[in-house]
Amino acid sequence: MAIAREDPKNLDELNRELAQGYMRGLWAREIPERGEPRPFGPPHVWKWEAIHSGLLAAGDLVSLDRFGVRRNIGLVNPGLVEQGAFASATMTMGFQLVKSGETALAHRHTASAIRFIVEGQVGAYTVVNGEKCTMERGDLILTPNWHWHDHHNESERPVIWIDGLDAPMGMALRAGFTEPYHDPKGQPLKSAVDYASRNPGGLSVPGPAPVRLIYKWKETLAALHGINDTNKSPHDGRCLEYRNETYGGHTLRSFTCWIQMLDGGEETLRHRHTTTHLYHVVEGEGSTEAGEKKLAWEKGDCFVIPNWTWHRHRNTDPREPAILFSMNDLPVQQALDLYREERSE
Amino acid sequence: MAIAREDPKNLDELNRELAQGYMRGLWAREIPERGEPRPFGPPHVWKWEAIHSGLLAAGDLVSLDRFGVRRNIGLVNPGLVEQGAFASATMTMGFQLVKSGETALAHRHTASAIRFIVEGQVGAYTVVNGEKCTMERGDLILTPNWHWHDHHNESERPVIWIDGLDAPMGMALRAGFTEPYHDPKGQPLKSAVDYASRNPGGLSVPGPAPVRLIYKWKETLAALHGINDTNKSPHDGRCLEYRNETYGGHTLRSFTCWIQMLDGGEETLRHRHTTTHLYHVVEGEGSTEAGEKKLAWEKGDCFVIPNWTWHRHRNTDPREPAILFSMNDLPVQQALDLYREERSE
Amino acid sequence: MAIAREDPKNLDELNRELAQGYMRGLWAREIPERGEPRPFGPPHVWKWEAIHSGLLAAGDLVSLDRFGVRRNIGLVNPGLVEQGAFASATMTMGFQLVKSGETALAHRHTASAIRFIVEGQVGAYTVVNGEKCTMERGDLILTPNWHWHDHHNESERPVIWIDGLDAPMGMALRAGFTEPYHDPKGQPLKSAVDYASRNPGGLSVPGPAPVRLIYKWKETLAALHGINDTNKSPHDGRCLEYRNETYGGHTLRSFTCWIQMLDGGEETLRHRHTTTHLYHVVEGEGSTEAGEKKLAWEKGDCFVIPNWTWHRHRNTDPREPAILFSMNDLPVQQALDLYREERSE
Amino acid sequence: MAIAREDPKNLDELNRELAQGYMRGLWAREIPERGEPRPFGPPHVWKWEAIHSGLLAAGDLVSLDRFGVRRNIGLVNPGLVEQGAFASATMTMGFQLVKSGETALAHRHTASAIRFIVEGQVGAYTVVNGEKCTMERGDLILTPNWHWHDHHNESERPVIWIDGLDAPMGMALRAGFTEPYHDPKGQPLKSAVDYASRNPGGLSVPGPAPVRLIYKWKETLAALHGINDTNKSPHDGRCLEYRNETYGGHTLRSFTCWIQMLDGGEETLRHRHTTTHLYHVVEGEGSTEAGEKKLAWEKGDCFVIPNWTWHRHRNTDPREPAILFSMNDLPVQQALDLYREERSE
Repeated sequence: MAIAREDPKNLDELNRELAQGYMRGLWAREIPERGEPRPFGPPHVWKWEAIHSGLLAAGDLVSLDRFGVRRNIGLVNPGLVEQGAFASATMTMGFQLVKSGETALAHRHTASAIRFIVEGQVGAYTVVNGEKCTMERGDLILTPNWHWHDHHNESERPVIWIDGLDAPMGMALRAGFTEPYHDPKGQPLKSAVDYASRNPGGLSVPGPAPVRLIYKWKETLAALHGINDTNKSPHDGRCLEYRNETYGGHTLRSFTCWIQMLDGGEETLRHRHTTTHLYHVVEGEGSTEAGEKKLAWEKGDCFVIPNWTWHRHRNTDPREPAILFSMNDLPVQQALDLYREERSE
Repeated sequence: MAIAREDPKNLDELNRELAQGYMRGLWAREIPERGEPRPFGPPHVWKWEAIHSGLLAAGDLVSLDRFGVRRNIGLVNPGLVEQGAFASATMTMGFQLVKSGETALAHRHTASAIRFIVEGQVGAYTVVNGEKCTMERGDLILTPNWHWHDHHNESERPVIWIDGLDAPMGMALRAGFTEPYHDPKGQPLKSAVDYASRNPGGLSVPGPAPVRLIYKWKETLAALHGINDTNKSPHDGRCLEYRNETYGGHTLRSFTCWIQMLDGGEETLRHRHTTTHLYHVVEGEGSTEAGEKKLAWEKGDCFVIPNWTWHRHRNTDPREPAILFSMNDLPVQQALDLYREERSE
Repeated sequence: MAIAREDPKNLDELNRELAQGYMRGLWAREIPERGEPRPFGPPHVWKWEAIHSGLLAAGDLVSLDRFGVRRNIGLVNPGLVEQGAFASATMTMGFQLVKSGETALAHRHTASAIRFIVEGQVGAYTVVNGEKCTMERGDLILTPNWHWHDHHNESERPVIWIDGLDAPMGMALRAGFTEPYHDPKGQPLKSAVDYASRNPGGLSVPGPAPVRLIYKWKETLAALHGINDTNKSPHDGRCLEYRNETYGGHTLRSFTCWIQMLDGGEETLRHRHTTTHLYHVVEGEGSTEAGEKKLAWEKGDCFVIPNWTWHRHRNTDPREPAILFSMNDLPVQQALDLYREERSE
Repeated sequence: MAIAREDPKNLDELNRELAQGYMRGLWAREIPERGEPRPFGPPHVWKWEAIHSGLLAAGDLVSLDRFGVRRNIGLVNPGLVEQGAFASATMTMGFQLVKSGETALAHRHTASAIRFIVEGQVGAYTVVNGEKCTMERGDLILTPNWHWHDHHNESERPVIWIDGLDAPMGMALRAGFTEPYHDPKGQPLKSAVDYASRNPGGLSVPGPAPVRLIYKWKETLAALHGINDTNKSPHDGRCLEYRNETYGGHTLRSFTCWIQMLDGGEETLRHRHTTTHLYHVVEGEGSTEAGEKKLAWEKGDCFVIPNWTWHRHRNTDPREPAILFSMNDLPVQQALDLYREERSE
């Protein structure tokens, strides 16, 4: 076959013809010779005062029965307002309020989620596939992919927690399912309360290891204080990953969670990585230089370090430690061999 | 802390306030109680005549030097015109033309790719990390994640092939890098021609197994004809996966490739799955019912079965087999435990 | 080549000729048409009184300096007296005594080991690759493959523990190395005391998860009491595996450890498996039917259930629970796809 | 508890008492401070003439019906005559003869095996789980763990092959089962002849990848000649591993197979490793220095390089290549993290 051309065209004409036939020349895209990831949006801080005020208002205005199953306020990265309105390109971070006496009914979905408790106390709990997990400040509770979960508040005071999900990834893969639990009374309990937490020795019934579902704050805090100087990271201070044997050492299959402590006055070194980190300030105050921005934060605030953005943290209190909880999308980047990091000298 | 409310609001007012603070109530999204994936777009056929005509015109109008490194026409799903303009939500499928005497210069990127040769002959080849891979009709050549690759046509006639990439996934994860090769003369050759193909016994130098880079058509066709009736799939006929030990049995880490043969007159059973399949007709003619559509196809055409869309294939020629090459995103769905399938009775 | 025979032989003559040439006909072995594993030896009980008395005598007669690095008395299965003199075909179980003020100097070996503390208290400890692990009754300490370890007793009283090793496997594979630590003062400490135990939440510094080295008895006991009836095994009662993320959920790569509790008066169902179990009685008294034998045991005793031997356990005390620590070789059997189990109706 | 001693003993007395109670002091073993593996036996050559002569005699004297299911002559390392009488501590290597018209009836066992064909031709074949595998000189056929297999010789001439098994490992683990096939007529055929070999492109029906069962000599030889100088090993010449996706890139789960070619006059560098290698000379002649010995070998001979023995190979023919087939126990050593190698400068 020789290349024969009937009617000469110019490139614009060709582009129009291709578009009509649902095609597009690669030359019509901007593809740099040498490229690196562009952050999906700017670094940003969400102040606790605004989040909290919104939650209180939603507590009055949004009925769990009437408006849907969850009273959740999601953070929206300014760069993603039109593209999904999520906190990052791969993860969501939001705040949920369940008032005294309320129940958020049981359902399950293919999106995997974590809950980090911001305000909670005895009487508040989540049931995950039949395991009752108590919700006290600082606890981390997992509801992996397709696990039933319902939230209960039998205490006198409201419960507030962070919901973190991999929903944007599931949406990108177009593979999401959701299902309500058949019985409005919720799931039957199948194990001891906080089974995974009361079973901290890494011991469990022979056979495939169960998924770990809860990490109590008391133990997390002890572990955090147990990190010696040798094990400090120059970029992240005293930093721990919530590990899950089921997911190869990460918290979940799609994203993972960290808890980190900056000593009084500590300032970390600058680096950047292809992963995105969503932060919540558990204790203390400080600031994070991220790209061109300087994000000042204090207890309750949230902030985001988008992908491939140079950043460093600083605890501005010279004496008290600052504690940060965070989520990042390392596991899926590792599964696709995409993770990279650069460090400043 | 008791919940105290200073100024009563209505929900619209709250929504506005939240939006101003880069937040959004979950109640403002439509979230069904019971949900399943929505296809990212309609099933669609792209006719070879239009693709081919576009390639020929591009051969005249697009210089490899001037307009960029690749003369590629990408298929655009009608449902994704505004959202990336890709063939599917997770993969691209396009056609590339390299004319006699031309070279597409070496570069590498974190996107993984396959090439399926539509028109090729002795003298045409791709070099992948120093391995020269010949390009003849029906061959499959891989350029995994961050492998250098350059395309050469030292034959008298043009070469046309399908480029399939996981670029939409890399974009979703915001982790993509691209780099040109330092030497315009291209990469030095490091192994025998078609090393992986001349080494078909699964033998290789001790140590980590090398990535398989080429599957020659002659062997693929022999394997296809070697499938007996017992191993036929009721949904996909005589179907083979191009396996790669490096990627746990799939072709690449992010997507995988199949070659399948429908016997003369064969009609498969209906099913649907969360994965998307991008097809190219290697031989024969037939039709595929997909959702509400009936896609008629013949040699050279491409078509897409979007995620979670009921479908069945039919070879409309009563005597001659039809052969289909395809790509699908099963590996990443399995890595995140998201794959599901439903079959009609 | 036609088969030509010069000198007719009989089979005995052939067998002799082959033996002279270091060959052997398969016909000269007894190979049953249908076969199953033969236990390597009989079930057997070792009484604590005898073990303890031996240890005390060794305490007087055996100097850590003079006679070698460890004052250890190994259990010998009656079926293996001539074949290695080990407790089982794949594992050793022995008792070690370190007196007040003594140190067992640091070394490392490719054999992996566990220590289960029988008598211990504050002041006794083992250092494993720089991590100080305290030795109190019921604690489990690991010294995996090629980890430096030295044992110290700075308390006023002797320390006694069980040493369990995979030495017979390493010997079968002929791949064992041993090395003394260069400095007689021992290893420097690198982390907090009982780091892995004070870090029970499954949290650790990002990066490859560290090997868990210690499981404190207090937590083990709490976990044991936390097993509800639903999770009881009909064959092993309330049973937990000491899990190690590093080894795919087992305690070590070659063998694994269990702790199990039989309720007052409990009698388990009969089963057999290709694995061998070496038991130590932590609390209580009971009996185990194993093959033709009935093994009566009480606190401090050890017993072995050899491979493929039918067995059942009974707690003969109607009120108090019995607690058993054990080792078994499941991990290596799984690695080679050899594990099987049979259960009585 | 204070240590109290009733009757002073000496160490001999204690040792006797312990032995009576089926115990043994570690001090009674020779355990060097610094140790490395001792080879299980000497390097050794078995000459083809002796093997072949034995096989011919066995052909006359040993009936497949009468004396057992396999007419196999096993090689016995001089160091293992009393300890299992195997070729190495972990593997067996033997030769099997099936005469024209004979069948070795179907059975299966938990030991995994390979067959390397020394003399074979059209009409000779093995059936493995329903797949007919032809037996021609140089072919490698696998019968993994618990796969049914029967051997048939419908040709006019005898077939001789090497049987290599992991039987010593299975015996060490005491987990071996054997079972005869219920039907003396043998297994029904389930796939095309040499399915895995006619399917060389690494393609197979979607789903779990099937176990590869056959590697035809023609392809092996082509692969061997395809190794360029860059990929030559200084210790093993042009060397290939028979890879199996199912077993993580090794031939089987317990041991792996290599084919290697020494160029005319080639002499390799000295090294040693914890693995043992059992060799068979396919073509050519040469010598191997192993420990204190110099093993001269020619076509048909077998030799063993025991574990941790320094060795180097030499092709004594200055022009013709020598080709060696071998088995080694790397996979199980890697599974237990035991592999080590040392190279001379």
